[in-house]
Amino acid sequence: MENVKIVIWGFGAMGSGMAKMLLNKKGVDIVGVCDRNEKRVGKSMYEVLGAERGDRPEVIINDNIEEVLTEGCCDVCICATDSFTEKAFPRLKFALERKVNVISTAEEMAYPQAQNPELAKKLNEIAKENGVSILGTGINPGLIMDLLVVCLTGCMVDVEHVEAERVNSLSPFGEAVMEEQGVGITVDEFDKGVKDGTLAGHVGFSESIKMIGDAIGWDVEKIEQQMKPIVTSIDRKSPYGFAKAGNVAGVNMTGQGHVDGDVKINMKHPQQIEPEMEGTHTGDYIRIKGTPEVNMSIKPEVEGGLGTIAMCVNMIPHVINADSGLKTMLDLPVPRAIMGDMRNFIK
Amino acid sequence: MENVKIVIWGFGAMGSGMAKMLLNKKGVDIVGVCDRNEKRVGKSMYEVLGAERGDRPEVIINDNIEEVLTEGCCDVCICATDSFTEKAFPRLKFALERKVNVISTAEEMAYPQAQNPELAKKLNEIAKENGVSILGTGINPGLIMDLLVVCLTGCMVDVEHVEAERVNSLSPFGEAVMEEQGVGITVDEFDKGVKDGTLAGHVGFSESIKMIGDAIGWDVEKIEQQMKPIVTSIDRKSPYGFAKAGNVAGVNMTGQGHVDGDVKINMKHPQQIEPEMEGTHTGDYIRIKGTPEVNMSIKPEVEGGLGTIAMCVNMIPHVINADSGLKTMLDLPVPRAIMGDMRNFIK
Repeated sequence: MENVKIVIWGFGAMGSGMAKMLLNKKGVDIVGVCDRNEKRVGKSMYEVLGAERGDRPEVIINDNIEEVLTEGCCDVCICATDSFTEKAFPRLKFALERKVNVISTAEEMAYPQAQNPELAKKLNEIAKENGVSILGTGINPGLIMDLLVVCLTGCMVDVEHVEAERVNSLSPFGEAVMEEQGVGITVDEFDKGVKDGTLAGHVGFSESIKMIGDAIGWDVEKIEQQMKPIVTSIDRKSPYGFAKAGNVAGVNMTGQGHVDGDVKINMKHPQQIEPEMEGTHTGDYIRIKGTPEVNMSIKPEVEGGLGTIAMCVNMIPHVINADSGLKTMLDLPVPRAIMGDMRNFIK
Repeated sequence: MENVKIVIWGFGAMGSGMAKMLLNKKGVDIVGVCDRNEKRVGKSMYEVLGAERGDRPEVIINDNIEEVLTEGCCDVCICATDSFTEKAFPRLKFALERKVNVISTAEEMAYPQAQNPELAKKLNEIAKENGVSILGTGINPGLIMDLLVVCLTGCMVDVEHVEAERVNSLSPFGEAVMEEQGVGITVDEFDKGVKDGTLAGHVGFSESIKMIGDAIGWDVEKIEQQMKPIVTSIDRKSPYGFAKAGNVAGVNMTGQGHVDGDVKINMKHPQQIEPEMEGTHTGDYIRIKGTPEVNMSIKPEVEGGLGTIAMCVNMIPHVINADSGLKTMLDLPVPRAIMGDMRNFIK
């Protein structure tokens, strides 16, 4: 059997991180990389990664996807370019029409049924027409605040209320994330950014809430979310971020899913740089009321960057094995690390 | 669409617990119960459960499986009669040949490939010949020390070592479990029971270890396990158990999976009555070394009886939806609570 062939579209922190991970796995080759960043275009992928090429064929980063992604040129195209389904859609469509399976890192694509049911339907149709499958995944949405919740309800006779809390540190992240999450700005600037929609905060509550609801058979009738600044009382500094005392060190996102007139799904997701400096301990928490109750914690939290990289790479065999159409994490077997030859995971 | 139809074979604590759970779910009917206990045979299932029958048809507990389980009489037969694959095999074969899907509570059936690869192959063939599927599941093996471990490796780039620890209380369990686990006997009696094989302790380490290995691509070359008495220094009393100071309050099971010459999978499972009396706090712990590390805890532990009942019932739709053959928890989508009409979970 030939090695599994992967094309990576988007070579930022996520795309390049997946490339590094893939270079350490057996039975899989990266056969193409598309990226538009001028610093990277025309260079060797290995040079950009600072990795040994060995006897592997050269991969030159190309900004023209038409040249990189030709019909059936790979088994899976990992599309690490967007956060929103609507923006990702033309790219995903392009890839599916090249008759390759697709994994998207776009947060909304973890459950596009939640906010873009029409586009979800179209993606399903396009994938089926081309005999391939498409999945959106990542650490969150994708695992921590949704799939893991669903999995833990599996040992419950009855579920009354779900709470998922992810208290994480933004310190490992780069400048783009600092900007997106408002790290270092004033409270006034933060409020303005929330009002005019320039501050995204965490993307994924609607997806996680709807995924949980659909999985266990709760009809979620309304989803709300709030976004508040985490104001630091001391100066905080991370490798790529700085928040002066009185300014914003991060974002406290909260969300609620209403079922039968009550809030039955609660999401809490404060993310900030250097949380320990003011006594906040990071962790992932799932508290499910019902029979029997389940109180789970992961301390510290699963690191977001590495977690997303791993989830996308580890789902490659499941996406290849799946029948055609739009898939979600609810449809496929549980994710798992790939420690052996990737070809052994293909049915 | 008609309601989902279930036959329950074995009406002890597990089988009757599943019946109680099913009576509270929508879109599913229990159409037959087979049990050989004289106290139950010939009685109404509702009477035995102490449940309201309402306008549901009567179900009389019958000791003749030939009468209860006829060809295609139900969608799923839950077989809650055994712990070991070899002992369960003739019953499972009988059910599959009646062209119904099967869920087995036998611990070894959670991964029969581990200790009975020949029987696993046969079950796969029989299921395929009859166009149905068969799954073994439960709380452990089935979720806590295997599937949940596998799921958490999904967010990891690299896995170096897995440790799963389940510290649970035997206090909620009845006389049969007290006897199986040696609660109340002397240390000498315990040692004798281990030697002559009359004390089973926890059944499932081989299954959990092999399931994890196969899932992530580790070739497990050797599995070892140990069984030691938990000796109490004070008198401990639970509803169905009593251990005098100096005697056995439970069993400390440990197991190891060897990969590439090293122990890479470690299992620890001390189970005893009234653990808190000597300062032992119950909980489920998964510690995975690698990148990133994952340290999970569930406190207190997921209750074993309810957990097994829920896992078996919640997997009903997945087993109906599966293509034919022997399935394991690794092959199917993640378990999930069934809070809506069960028919909505069928594809």
